[in-house]
Amino acid sequence: MNEEPRKRRAGGRAGNKLRAGTAVIDQMPWRIPVNPDAPVEPLDAEGVLRIHKTAMRILKEIGIEFLNPEAVEHLRRAGCRVDGTNVRMDEEFVMEMLSKAPSEFTITPRNPERELVIGGKHMVFVNVSSPPNAWDMERGKRSGDFETFKEFMKLTQYFNCIHIAGGYPVEPIDIHPSVRHLDCLYEKLTLTDKVVHAYSLGAERVEDVMEMTRIAGGLSEEEFRAKPRMYTNINSVSPLKHDFPMLDGAMRLARRGQPVVVTPFTLAGAMAPVTMAGAVALSLAEALAAIALLQYIAPGCPVAIGTFTSNVDMKSGAPAFGTPEYMRATQMTGQLVRFYKLPLRSSGVCAANVPDGQAMWETSNSLWAAVQSRTNMVYHAAGWLEGGLIASPEKFVMDCEVLQMIQRYFEEATFATTDEDLAFDAIREVGAGGHYFGCQHTQDRYTTAFYAPFVSDWRNYEAWQQGGSVWTPERAHRIYRQILEEFEAPEMNGDHAEELRRFVARRKQEGGAPTDF
Amino acid sequence: MNEEPRKRRAGGRAGNKLRAGTAVIDQMPWRIPVNPDAPVEPLDAEGVLRIHKTAMRILKEIGIEFLNPEAVEHLRRAGCRVDGTNVRMDEEFVMEMLSKAPSEFTITPRNPERELVIGGKHMVFVNVSSPPNAWDMERGKRSGDFETFKEFMKLTQYFNCIHIAGGYPVEPIDIHPSVRHLDCLYEKLTLTDKVVHAYSLGAERVEDVMEMTRIAGGLSEEEFRAKPRMYTNINSVSPLKHDFPMLDGAMRLARRGQPVVVTPFTLAGAMAPVTMAGAVALSLAEALAAIALLQYIAPGCPVAIGTFTSNVDMKSGAPAFGTPEYMRATQMTGQLVRFYKLPLRSSGVCAANVPDGQAMWETSNSLWAAVQSRTNMVYHAAGWLEGGLIASPEKFVMDCEVLQMIQRYFEEATFATTDEDLAFDAIREVGAGGHYFGCQHTQDRYTTAFYAPFVSDWRNYEAWQQGGSVWTPERAHRIYRQILEEFEAPEMNGDHAEELRRFVARRKQEGGAPTDF
Repeated sequence: MNEEPRKRRAGGRAGNKLRAGTAVIDQMPWRIPVNPDAPVEPLDAEGVLRIHKTAMRILKEIGIEFLNPEAVEHLRRAGCRVDGTNVRMDEEFVMEMLSKAPSEFTITPRNPERELVIGGKHMVFVNVSSPPNAWDMERGKRSGDFETFKEFMKLTQYFNCIHIAGGYPVEPIDIHPSVRHLDCLYEKLTLTDKVVHAYSLGAERVEDVMEMTRIAGGLSEEEFRAKPRMYTNINSVSPLKHDFPMLDGAMRLARRGQPVVVTPFTLAGAMAPVTMAGAVALSLAEALAAIALLQYIAPGCPVAIGTFTSNVDMKSGAPAFGTPEYMRATQMTGQLVRFYKLPLRSSGVCAANVPDGQAMWETSNSLWAAVQSRTNMVYHAAGWLEGGLIASPEKFVMDCEVLQMIQRYFEEATFATTDEDLAFDAIREVGAGGHYFGCQHTQDRYTTAFYAPFVSDWRNYEAWQQGGSVWTPERAHRIYRQILEEFEAPEMNGDHAEELRRFVARRKQEGGAPTDF
Repeated sequence: MNEEPRKRRAGGRAGNKLRAGTAVIDQMPWRIPVNPDAPVEPLDAEGVLRIHKTAMRILKEIGIEFLNPEAVEHLRRAGCRVDGTNVRMDEEFVMEMLSKAPSEFTITPRNPERELVIGGKHMVFVNVSSPPNAWDMERGKRSGDFETFKEFMKLTQYFNCIHIAGGYPVEPIDIHPSVRHLDCLYEKLTLTDKVVHAYSLGAERVEDVMEMTRIAGGLSEEEFRAKPRMYTNINSVSPLKHDFPMLDGAMRLARRGQPVVVTPFTLAGAMAPVTMAGAVALSLAEALAAIALLQYIAPGCPVAIGTFTSNVDMKSGAPAFGTPEYMRATQMTGQLVRFYKLPLRSSGVCAANVPDGQAMWETSNSLWAAVQSRTNMVYHAAGWLEGGLIASPEKFVMDCEVLQMIQRYFEEATFATTDEDLAFDAIREVGAGGHYFGCQHTQDRYTTAFYAPFVSDWRNYEAWQQGGSVWTPERAHRIYRQILEEFEAPEMNGDHAEELRRFVARRKQEGGAPTDF
């Protein structure tokens, strides 16, 4: 264990308050955004029902492969038809299980002021998760390592618009897989005070993360189980398959009352039908099957459905993101997930290799689709490139500007119609041909009336040119470097920190987790 | 008159058919997009009414300055209260005048296959209009000139997703203002066969453009008047003022049955209240005043309301675009304009100086706001930078990718739920763990199932790197250069072309238009 980060953290500011960040940028305060818009609904009621019925037919007539004997045994006991690993379930069972799931739940990390609401109109943002590689303007593309992992954790903590320290922003391949989760979670839990996530990649890893989360929060086992403290996200092996470790991890979390997000990766034309409604139906069938299992073994456990339905490039078969088809799939999934009364996860994604125009129109498309589908949890909301193969700090900073704009877009002030907003008196006062810069109505509101960007440059061309003609990614790069320089880790109770270090040391001595699966 | 373009045009392909473009890129065919989405409506019914009532109070209690004696005289006769240039009108009069305006109309350019529908759920895209400057990757920023003007006209014609050759993409300052409109319209009418626009900048200019449009279409005066053939867009001088030439041009068009779009430029915090609802109310009052005038002098003439309500930068007072406040203002205006049963114009805009990430997130925000507000006519949909001070060909190409994605997003195929779309049989056929690349359901649809981009690069990083690591603006630059090289102008009837040239020559000899206003 590298002790160096600890020393740096010892200089952290006192108090448990949510800092608005250092002086690097003037960012919006921490909040849980609430999406006031009616969702965009491409499907009519019949369309919703047709996708639902198709998902039910898939579950009943084709069935799902559960590559986990324990899961199969549970489902057999629940009355599902089992044939080897194939499990068929009928609508009645699925809907009964769904009725047990909460439509909304909280997750409370070690800093209770960072508690999140998942569901309803709430929308939270997760850092980029799971790219094997990093890219930045200075170093180009390279494999993920632990130092880069920590850089992204600092960005995750720094930005108030990022609510969750999700999966590893990059895979730190310089740490042995057997102990990687220990080092990574240690950094996650000490460099951030936000909700953390566990990969469902084997019993030991999952249990270690739950235990570390419990320790970091200074919780008894009873307190830990009492409400959601962290979560996992599992993917099916589309089409129609759930693998052993994902199901194992999901069941472990469900039993301890911790949330499970089930996110099939159904790429239309590859592992799902080439037609979007079919890809959505397949995705839902896979998600519902796992959720039915979890509600059977732990009735009422918090769950959410994730959508990762996109399409391939027609020429190469490569995955594409932020496409029109992606947007519609996300909206349709949103409609069905509301029909099932569950929280929804989607993503902020693109296929671009560098943080340029394409990256931002694809990411904007996917983020607006998240808004339109009333997504509750936006994965990869900051930092994602190359279809998830690259995490980029410049993209992280740029995405946070878009996320902040979405947060501001949600604020009622932007569409309020009180007398003060309608400003009739100011309009009469200024009259024809005047200007509003000086009037009292403006003076009273000027500093907070509009969104203030931190990476966008709104100067005119000549001023921008005099400032060095700096394009967006380079501006983002400078901000990212400065954030790292001035970063201060959040405070952590010394006893909890000590216990966490002891736990990591002990588990490392024991050899960590097996790596042979 | 430079005769060189004519020779080139003589090589144009025969036939009146709509070409899908040359082989430079594989673009979507010409179409009038129809927006199937329910609009995003931040206001409830009471909010709509509150903005409406505020607009009506502005018109009744404060009044609008009409700096055009003829307009004032019409409105006096209509029963409005006139005090010098100040005209006050009451709700009853305004609503009666509005009731005469069509909610939807067509515009038919010289090529009748390019006829447009303005209103309802239709959405058409206009090229960037009126920047004084151009910027491209090779030449940087420079003043607009005639050659650059022609370049943009070729792009406007080339892209099927651009429906209207609107205002000048750049101001060609190397052409004397007295004859500039003659040269520009000649190029517009011969390099494109799409709907054109007239600036309302003096009687002679407006009449010349109408006359040239009539000649280019080979129309009698009666045929020209019979339906919309071109249009103008007028801006108020916010707050609360309409100037002489804009009103003069608008009235000239209305009398000949040609559409007028009224677009106040209400920048919240500068020439409009700092609160968005107030800025929208002011904008609507200004637009409705002009529309009431036009409906009084030419009942039933086609009109539309444009929104250009955005906010300033709180630090510098510079205009900002594509902001959260801009989006909400556009959506709110959409609600009110539907309340008035008129077509809506908005824009594709940004404050960025170069076609980078910021440019594309700001433009995406404004274009999605156009979709969400059910905008019928999207100005500056391709090519706009620096708050409208720069037209960029790279940005033009990049924007067209986004516009095409919006067109594809509108297609029912992306959210259809027929049995074929639900693909249950294919899901059964492929089963668990298989893939969909090879199945018949995919094979039958593969080539048309998904949006195919022309400037986005969906290759992985290594393939992209081997291809030269080309970022989006550079790819767009290459496409733009190639389009210009291979451009072929649309065919034009030889007699009409000859008459057009004679008209231009004669009007130039007469001195063109006065330049002293």
